[in-house]
Amino acid sequence: MKRPAWVLAAALAACAGAAETPDDAAAWRAVDPENLLLIEVPYGTVAVELAPAFAPNHVARMKELARAGHYDADASFYRVIEGFVAQGGVAPAFETKEEEEAFDDGAPEIAAELSRPMGADVTFTPLGSPDLFAPETGHAGGFAAARDPEDATVWLAHCPGAIAMARGEGADTGSSHFYVVLGEPRYLDRNLTIFGRVIDGMDLIQKLNRGDRVIDNGVIPDPEKRDPILSMRVAADLPAETRPAFEVMRTDSEAFEAHKRSLRVRDAAFFVRKPPEVLDVCQVPAPVRAAE
Amino acid sequence: MKRPAWVLAAALAACAGAAETPDDAAAWRAVDPENLLLIEVPYGTVAVELAPAFAPNHVARMKELARAGHYDADASFYRVIEGFVAQGGVAPAFETKEEEEAFDDGAPEIAAELSRPMGADVTFTPLGSPDLFAPETGHAGGFAAARDPEDATVWLAHCPGAIAMARGEGADTGSSHFYVVLGEPRYLDRNLTIFGRVIDGMDLIQKLNRGDRVIDNGVIPDPEKRDPILSMRVAADLPAETRPAFEVMRTDSEAFEAHKRSLRVRDAAFFVRKPPEVLDVCQVPAPVRAAE
Repeated sequence: MKRPAWVLAAALAACAGAAETPDDAAAWRAVDPENLLLIEVPYGTVAVELAPAFAPNHVARMKELARAGHYDADASFYRVIEGFVAQGGVAPAFETKEEEEAFDDGAPEIAAELSRPMGADVTFTPLGSPDLFAPETGHAGGFAAARDPEDATVWLAHCPGAIAMARGEGADTGSSHFYVVLGEPRYLDRNLTIFGRVIDGMDLIQKLNRGDRVIDNGVIPDPEKRDPILSMRVAADLPAETRPAFEVMRTDSEAFEAHKRSLRVRDAAFFVRKPPEVLDVCQVPAPVRAAE
Repeated sequence: MKRPAWVLAAALAACAGAAETPDDAAAWRAVDPENLLLIEVPYGTVAVELAPAFAPNHVARMKELARAGHYDADASFYRVIEGFVAQGGVAPAFETKEEEEAFDDGAPEIAAELSRPMGADVTFTPLGSPDLFAPETGHAGGFAAARDPEDATVWLAHCPGAIAMARGEGADTGSSHFYVVLGEPRYLDRNLTIFGRVIDGMDLIQKLNRGDRVIDNGVIPDPEKRDPILSMRVAADLPAETRPAFEVMRTDSEAFEAHKRSLRVRDAAFFVRKPPEVLDVCQVPAPVRAAE
């Protein structure tokens, strides 16, 4: 029986909503190079859009560390758990446990920024679907977010690509180690500070070597097997003509409403059973494109 | 400030539920080597547990094709979309569109197996949390599943690691091309036939080269950049002493109840805000371990 690859591709594409990114310039905003963090790993460069509206101190910290070259030596993704998180930071190889415990990477602790009051500077656009973990979900400034109408606070959600500060036992013990979310560990919402999201290169993060969740809590024991962080840069510090540039669809735009509608209402002939008209906020990232 | 990698790891591990796999032999079942499909990719071997209770004809088809060497030449993961699916099958390089359309890989179409009536042979263990896409979710025979009490049917869910038959426009047009689910495209539930799940090697699937969702519907245009499928084998056909062997936690066991409880009720000191006591079925895969 004939089964050309492209026919299959076209069919499954109906469900990917691939074509639903209208070419309306007003629906897109340029990512500010001051909010664009570039993490170089052996597979390429991962681009992160920072979220100063949600975590101004964490954004300032990450930029300060990146500019100081903090992550340019001895940093790696040393704890990577499939379907959970890829955790990175400065983690040199140690000879003994004592050496490891005594190690100080020099970054001071920072107070958590777990949620913020709703305000005029952030537009929250509700998704219009129920959610397991929050009273309401939606998007704010291009980021997957949630809010609580009762106390009028809003926070970023642990969806694939979210980047957050790792920490110890207390809320305010993060400093420089961070993680990129691989799965949907939404139960971490408002427990750790999300300060941005990967807008390009999640496929590169997915290539990172994994640790064993059960045996070593995901820490890769052999430092040779940890994928290094080769450098971390703020895009604004690179020459304008060579730095990557991206645009994110405005999540308060009509174009994004149309995009969500196409994902929520699946009426293509491909669907032999029409899915419920609902969306999971983690499965609706704001579209990103390379700037011209 | 002191920030040893292992302390951070231990802290975040509290949320990973890493230690919650009790060593109770009765709680585990060996995976039948007749239901264990081994897909070799350049990064290693991916192990799939087949689900004959849910898709007997698809399981028979995949084993038949694997045993005939169908996937041992010209097969690749030719359409891979980050956060969605990795689609594979026999897709040789073609010179022209006409050649591609005329290509026939010889596998006949197969009728969909989208759901099955509840029966004594499948134990459905409810998760006890609400769900966006189904009246009820839970686990059946180690697989993430959903059911509808009204018509007493049960089906497998599009969660990370689920493997399903790709198809064209009609429900019964699948034949040999398949996809591994990367994200949570639950809206595909009961639209395509899931016939198993990856129980080892999702990290290898995540290493596969991606295509561009927007430009080519995820199809990687350059065949050189598609990761090949090197072979596909039924484990039972390999010598017993060399084949991999796995055990899956019984999803109708007390041990699995305890596992789920530890993920639902997060009362470790690490949690500065106690998460809602809910679970997303896609985030609770049945634990797997290598058999002794």
